[in-house]
Amino acid sequence: MSENKVNLAMLCDFYELTMSNGYFNADMKDRICYFDLFYRRVPDGGGFAIAAGLEQVVQYNQGLHFSEEDIAYLRGRKLFSEEFLEYLKTFRFTGDIYAVPEGTPVFPKEPILTVRAPAIEAQLIETYLLLAINHQSLIATKANRVVRAAQGRTVLEFGSRRAQGEQGAVLGARAAYIGGCHGTACTVSDQLYGVPAAGTMAHSWVQMFDTEFDAFRTYCEQYPNNATLLVDTYNTLKSGVPNAIRAFNEVLKPLGITKCGIRLDSGDMTYLTKKARKMLDDAGWTECKISVSNSLDEYLIQDLLRQGAQIDMFGVGERLITARSEPVFGGVYKLVAVEDGEGRVLPKIKVSENVGKITTPHYKKLYRFYGNDTGKAIADYLTVYDEVVDDSKNLLIFDPDATWKQKEVYDFTAKELQVPVFLKGELVYKLPALEEIRAYCAQQVDTLWDEVKRFDNPHSYYVDLSQKLWDIKYGLLKDSAGGSQ
Amino acid sequence: MSENKVNLAMLCDFYELTMSNGYFNADMKDRICYFDLFYRRVPDGGGFAIAAGLEQVVQYNQGLHFSEEDIAYLRGRKLFSEEFLEYLKTFRFTGDIYAVPEGTPVFPKEPILTVRAPAIEAQLIETYLLLAINHQSLIATKANRVVRAAQGRTVLEFGSRRAQGEQGAVLGARAAYIGGCHGTACTVSDQLYGVPAAGTMAHSWVQMFDTEFDAFRTYCEQYPNNATLLVDTYNTLKSGVPNAIRAFNEVLKPLGITKCGIRLDSGDMTYLTKKARKMLDDAGWTECKISVSNSLDEYLIQDLLRQGAQIDMFGVGERLITARSEPVFGGVYKLVAVEDGEGRVLPKIKVSENVGKITTPHYKKLYRFYGNDTGKAIADYLTVYDEVVDDSKNLLIFDPDATWKQKEVYDFTAKELQVPVFLKGELVYKLPALEEIRAYCAQQVDTLWDEVKRFDNPHSYYVDLSQKLWDIKYGLLKDSAGGSQ
Repeated sequence: MSENKVNLAMLCDFYELTMSNGYFNADMKDRICYFDLFYRRVPDGGGFAIAAGLEQVVQYNQGLHFSEEDIAYLRGRKLFSEEFLEYLKTFRFTGDIYAVPEGTPVFPKEPILTVRAPAIEAQLIETYLLLAINHQSLIATKANRVVRAAQGRTVLEFGSRRAQGEQGAVLGARAAYIGGCHGTACTVSDQLYGVPAAGTMAHSWVQMFDTEFDAFRTYCEQYPNNATLLVDTYNTLKSGVPNAIRAFNEVLKPLGITKCGIRLDSGDMTYLTKKARKMLDDAGWTECKISVSNSLDEYLIQDLLRQGAQIDMFGVGERLITARSEPVFGGVYKLVAVEDGEGRVLPKIKVSENVGKITTPHYKKLYRFYGNDTGKAIADYLTVYDEVVDDSKNLLIFDPDATWKQKEVYDFTAKELQVPVFLKGELVYKLPALEEIRAYCAQQVDTLWDEVKRFDNPHSYYVDLSQKLWDIKYGLLKDSAGGSQ
Repeated sequence: MSENKVNLAMLCDFYELTMSNGYFNADMKDRICYFDLFYRRVPDGGGFAIAAGLEQVVQYNQGLHFSEEDIAYLRGRKLFSEEFLEYLKTFRFTGDIYAVPEGTPVFPKEPILTVRAPAIEAQLIETYLLLAINHQSLIATKANRVVRAAQGRTVLEFGSRRAQGEQGAVLGARAAYIGGCHGTACTVSDQLYGVPAAGTMAHSWVQMFDTEFDAFRTYCEQYPNNATLLVDTYNTLKSGVPNAIRAFNEVLKPLGITKCGIRLDSGDMTYLTKKARKMLDDAGWTECKISVSNSLDEYLIQDLLRQGAQIDMFGVGERLITARSEPVFGGVYKLVAVEDGEGRVLPKIKVSENVGKITTPHYKKLYRFYGNDTGKAIADYLTVYDEVVDDSKNLLIFDPDATWKQKEVYDFTAKELQVPVFLKGELVYKLPALEEIRAYCAQQVDTLWDEVKRFDNPHSYYVDLSQKLWDIKYGLLKDSAGGSQ
């Protein structure tokens, strides 16, 4: 069989199961918990990330179950009580999930997703939720950088063959599209998700024919409306481009076709594309597009364009599909509150000797403030769940680490970023179409100041806490500093 | 549904399909081609890689088909002839595949896998073959480095939550096990592949109880034979270790249990493990194992051990499951020969301005020479398919790039590394059990000299060409240097 079937419920760290069995046996399974999913640092030293992967989280939660085979496997491990295994037979997700929509720019230490659920449910979904959000946010974030570097030129995702596993390729292409890529080479990502798939030829096509020209002519005959020829198999300028022009002249010209393309996959892209552009223009093929591919990323693209390389389309492979320069999106999933027997929400904090790893406790709301004059995002603002921001008045916000850094926000609109996705286990969110997500992403990135969008050493966007939340956080920190718990 | 079903036949670059349609319509579909899958550079500057992923290639090839839905999707693209789409309906792989067994140490520029098949079949499988071999070889290679750094201590793969997609986690754990890891946190990798899954507790377990001691005591009561306690939620030395010792004393000691463990996930591992070891020993818990996890890789492990850190088990997460320091295994798939109408094998070469990208043409055999005195691997040797190496005589081998560097090999055994996997589309290879692959890998790595195993700047292992193969390669290069093809 060529379908790889994995029950994703079993794609969990084993400790999720041992802890769950423990909660079950200690009669804690119905304790309502709140977990935040957030990240701590933007990959590549960038100024923001793009949230992605929520659609896969939704599908996962809807399908969550343990089969007879799963339970038999677990029984074989001789660690789980029969009562717990029985409980797993009818296990479903019955809690609430709030999340920022896919395509939203997100900043460190703010909840991308919040879970409110009984202890076992909230715990068991940890691994997959992190995997789904970490993977696709990583690739969407990288893609957005690459696309911004290309300054409006077409960027295609070409990396399937170097992806880390099947979904690395398939969902990687989906995430790259959200981040702004225009398409992919991955056929099944088009079939399943509607990411436009395109492609031309490999060197093997050229090698398969007796001459390069035969290869080009045959391709033009077969695909007169999509004739992009790979010109670097033998010698780009001496052989590839002249043979391409000859094939265009002999096959396309009589058909009145003026649109065509060449692709370069090796050599110096600045030098070769300038020369090739001139040769094509001199031969009258001014509408011929030049595509390049070969270890591209945002930095190389920026450099090529700065040098005046004549490029219409970038095919970006391994450095995008693996986010090669920093292939980990360090999202974490932390307990931030529990409910007592009377439904009161008790904040919880995770202390650490590493100050950066201290969590922001409590069930929270996440606001983004947009300036009414500019439409630009000014700051994000975290409050306790029962606070309401009144954006008809000025608001004094302050840096939670350096509290003397204050700023008065005025003439702004406060928008809640998280939306309800599941309530009591029921999906209450209409998943947007992929095209909508991609457009929303582009539009939201436009609300960020250029200072935040710089590739290196960008401005640190404000993610501030309300006074009430700050007081609770630092109160808990003081309590815990007392030592042994 | 929580199963993600992808017909892997459609997980191909779109150009595999446009080229295949082109071969079909140009009446070239039955042309027999030879492709080599090889890589050019060892990740992380290492001396060798570990081949992995063949089992997934076998499953893929066996299941290769196009469904009605796939064909309907392709028809909708309006690029493919109806005859071609009809042909896809009964498409199967009917060719031959030769490959080195999983777990074999492999070197740059030698064929890990060779395909002999009609043009379309050989072309269509390119993307998945590369993806499968690239991904798992990457992780097996990284895992082998990490395991060697741990010098016999236990290494568990802990990275699912940071993996790039589902199979990044699931098959990543499989590959890590081949490379020498002792287990994984990923439950489904145990269930499906038999990679032993293990786990302890998260910080959320500790936070869920009123006190750290309550959390530890409850865990010890539930898992007295597997009590590994996470001691860094509040303060490792002032709170975590003392509470762990108290829980061991109150719960395990009365049961006569002496085996237990603690885990640290933050702070300075050298300092903390030395202090914790002394506290545990002083309390009589000399059999308590100390586990650590937190951004570990081969370099940090080596450093910790050099500093005398007291560690029994390493949990290695994101830096292993994504091969963070170099997350791409650059395997490529290149046409090396075609057959003419009379069954003659005609070598093909891919020239490049970048000398390192020039391929070694022809249908080849790959030998490894082992010294009869030491059992160590001396050199790899590529020949034309019809050559036989006579290891009863001395053999003069030479560096293919610097031909004056020569070496006479004597008293050696020549072993062919590739084995037949598919012949005429039939599987002729018995897939070894995962445990066998892992043991074979360890045994084969032992045949390499330490000089080749150094992490940085290792000795370059010889991969030489026979005189006949060298003559053919450089003959083709000279021909192509003539310019336009």
